[in-house]
Amino acid sequence: MTTPPTQPPTENETGRLEAFSDGVLAVAITLLALNISVPLRESGHPWHGLAAALAGQWPVYLAYLLSFLTILIIWVNHHNLFKLIGHFDQLFLLLNGLLLMVVTLIPFATTLLADYIQQPDQKTAQAVYATVSLLMAIIFNRMWAYASRDRRLLSADAEQKQVDAITRQYRFGPILYLSAFGLAFVSAQASLAVCIGLAVFFAVPSGLLHRAPG
Amino acid sequence: MTTPPTQPPTENETGRLEAFSDGVLAVAITLLALNISVPLRESGHPWHGLAAALAGQWPVYLAYLLSFLTILIIWVNHHNLFKLIGHFDQLFLLLNGLLLMVVTLIPFATTLLADYIQQPDQKTAQAVYATVSLLMAIIFNRMWAYASRDRRLLSADAEQKQVDAITRQYRFGPILYLSAFGLAFVSAQASLAVCIGLAVFFAVPSGLLHRAPG
Amino acid sequence: MTTPPTQPPTENETGRLEAFSDGVLAVAITLLALNISVPLRESGHPWHGLAAALAGQWPVYLAYLLSFLTILIIWVNHHNLFKLIGHFDQLFLLLNGLLLMVVTLIPFATTLLADYIQQPDQKTAQAVYATVSLLMAIIFNRMWAYASRDRRLLSADAEQKQVDAITRQYRFGPILYLSAFGLAFVSAQASLAVCIGLAVFFAVPSGLLHRAPG
Amino acid sequence: MTTPPTQPPTENETGRLEAFSDGVLAVAITLLALNISVPLRESGHPWHGLAAALAGQWPVYLAYLLSFLTILIIWVNHHNLFKLIGHFDQLFLLLNGLLLMVVTLIPFATTLLADYIQQPDQKTAQAVYATVSLLMAIIFNRMWAYASRDRRLLSADAEQKQVDAITRQYRFGPILYLSAFGLAFVSAQASLAVCIGLAVFFAVPSGLLHRAPG
Repeated sequence: MTTPPTQPPTENETGRLEAFSDGVLAVAITLLALNISVPLRESGHPWHGLAAALAGQWPVYLAYLLSFLTILIIWVNHHNLFKLIGHFDQLFLLLNGLLLMVVTLIPFATTLLADYIQQPDQKTAQAVYATVSLLMAIIFNRMWAYASRDRRLLSADAEQKQVDAITRQYRFGPILYLSAFGLAFVSAQASLAVCIGLAVFFAVPSGLLHRAPG
Repeated sequence: MTTPPTQPPTENETGRLEAFSDGVLAVAITLLALNISVPLRESGHPWHGLAAALAGQWPVYLAYLLSFLTILIIWVNHHNLFKLIGHFDQLFLLLNGLLLMVVTLIPFATTLLADYIQQPDQKTAQAVYATVSLLMAIIFNRMWAYASRDRRLLSADAEQKQVDAITRQYRFGPILYLSAFGLAFVSAQASLAVCIGLAVFFAVPSGLLHRAPG
Repeated sequence: MTTPPTQPPTENETGRLEAFSDGVLAVAITLLALNISVPLRESGHPWHGLAAALAGQWPVYLAYLLSFLTILIIWVNHHNLFKLIGHFDQLFLLLNGLLLMVVTLIPFATTLLADYIQQPDQKTAQAVYATVSLLMAIIFNRMWAYASRDRRLLSADAEQKQVDAITRQYRFGPILYLSAFGLAFVSAQASLAVCIGLAVFFAVPSGLLHRAPG
Repeated sequence: MTTPPTQPPTENETGRLEAFSDGVLAVAITLLALNISVPLRESGHPWHGLAAALAGQWPVYLAYLLSFLTILIIWVNHHNLFKLIGHFDQLFLLLNGLLLMVVTLIPFATTLLADYIQQPDQKTAQAVYATVSLLMAIIFNRMWAYASRDRRLLSADAEQKQVDAITRQYRFGPILYLSAFGLAFVSAQASLAVCIGLAVFFAVPSGLLHRAPG
């Protein structure tokens, strides 16, 4: 990574960085579903046993839904952020790499949460899950702070109004997820509820609000 | 997801949405084959035992073929739909995300079907499989209804003839798969046969019909 | 898949078909390596036991190398073929889908081969492996025959010299792999050797021959 | 792979080669995290047992971090290299294929390292890991030597200053990783430390150094 970036980077460059990021996001979001396992045939279900066995693993579905929504939101944020980015440097590459690392850890954190949310160790599992979400919020915040300071990496035609909107949007993410993390040591359920609420808040309402002018 | 979409979205934007969707579809369709397991070497097959063991897992191949065809059809539909889409908004993003969620659940539903289609719980397994197909049909229907109403998200050069063709094509999907779902509670085999019939109908004949003018 | 292709398809369309195919090929070629398992720590190796355990699973490496080379060749062929394709229709889509289906089955066939090549059932395993290779050769042959007949799907600037070169290249694939398939019932080793020879022949020499003028 | 490359290859061609390579890199980097397993619920942890069980598998995290960084560096190098490449031939394709093969082996080598770094067989595991890194360095070195000799595959607008920078950068990789390989037979820990040091050296400092002018 020591090649001197003397040439001004072209649009094509962010294109390949976006494509690689999309690949990681697409693989991670698809691997999430591998955590939903088929109940073992051999275990001798009673009548309508499969339906009961499927219903009994509801924490798996809940964790799946939450993490699917989370990676979807990351993709949308990544997309919106890169629309304003005109070029990048080595440090931004590294920050984007850290973001992708957090994304690849989401399937692990999801399995951990689903396996332990009804167990005595539920607080540990939820604390790990909230940590992953917190890291995501911090890295997005840092990526944007680095890219937008003095419009360092922004493309020339990025409107200031949009830049400011993203700045506002990313300001509170770290604090909100930090509170979810802290809450995990008090109540795993409350902390999980905050994570779900944040995901739904980020994903759903703005879509519905923008429906009219869409 | 609260960035105001003040700039008119460009072609490039749907490009990245398509690329991400393609990634999810490509991973999901490839993961399907992981369900085809190699018979255990240790289990002491009799002579020509491997051939018999491979033949004995025919439900796995059937479920694989059906789901491969299904995801292929989803890709083709997605491709044809996005050829007419010029831009998108947050709600359309969310609908597309729901579609991708259903796609990532297909490998799970496929394994469930293959494991249980010869078991007492076959109706439950087939009902789950039909539910996934039904959700797919409903979401495509809703995506298209949202995008095409008053040509809300269509590109300016989308021909009305093509728009109407897709509207006709998506109209009956939900009803057809709803009947497959209902049938699962009467006969798993009949419901599965309907799902196979629909997949073959959507995939094969039109290709053969269009062969001459292709 | 019943949308009438009234608009003349653009370059962009084959672009997305290529991207989806690339995705499937990339996932399949990467999943191959999942078959290389780490020897169990618990099984109490003697001194230098890990090295011996790793060396002992040489059929796994051989099968991996063969299949990696095979998918790489498929990608190169697919790439060379699509350079000459200008547009596509539904039947071509279906043929390309069949090709991708065969690709996704390669990891399964590879595991089967590695597990059974030293077992009494080796002929069955090699016959399955050769079948997958044979299907690949047949589908490429048919795809190209369909696309190139009267230059049906070729782009206007595809040079006839290149078209003829691919026609020659694909002519003998099915026969060669059919002989490998038949040979599997006589000698699994001989059939495997033919498959390896064909993969090396297709992958390596032409690269070396073209080195000078490259 | 015998199609004669008579047409001058276009930018589009390296585009698809880059996209395929990106796919393999994205899948491999995401699969790394599958190695981080969730401690079994059944094994009866004592109080705060999950936290202890998670902490106890620190070699898994270390190996994960190292390999994630390694694949990220490979992507950056691949990206920087292809920015200067204008076209390619069959031998370059094969070299790129070998590089991707090494990439797909990284998840295996990572699991091996994590499983055995605290075991008597640690030297074997680390030697395998260093071998994979060494192969990566050699193949990059050979790819670049082949592409840059007499500017064989370089694009016309590749600046000689950048070409020389990459030549310098790739010169010492093979020697450095060869020493890590040799060291594995003396001390697994020392060899691993060299691998970590090289990864951090290649990934981090240059980003920080380039921060100011970024």
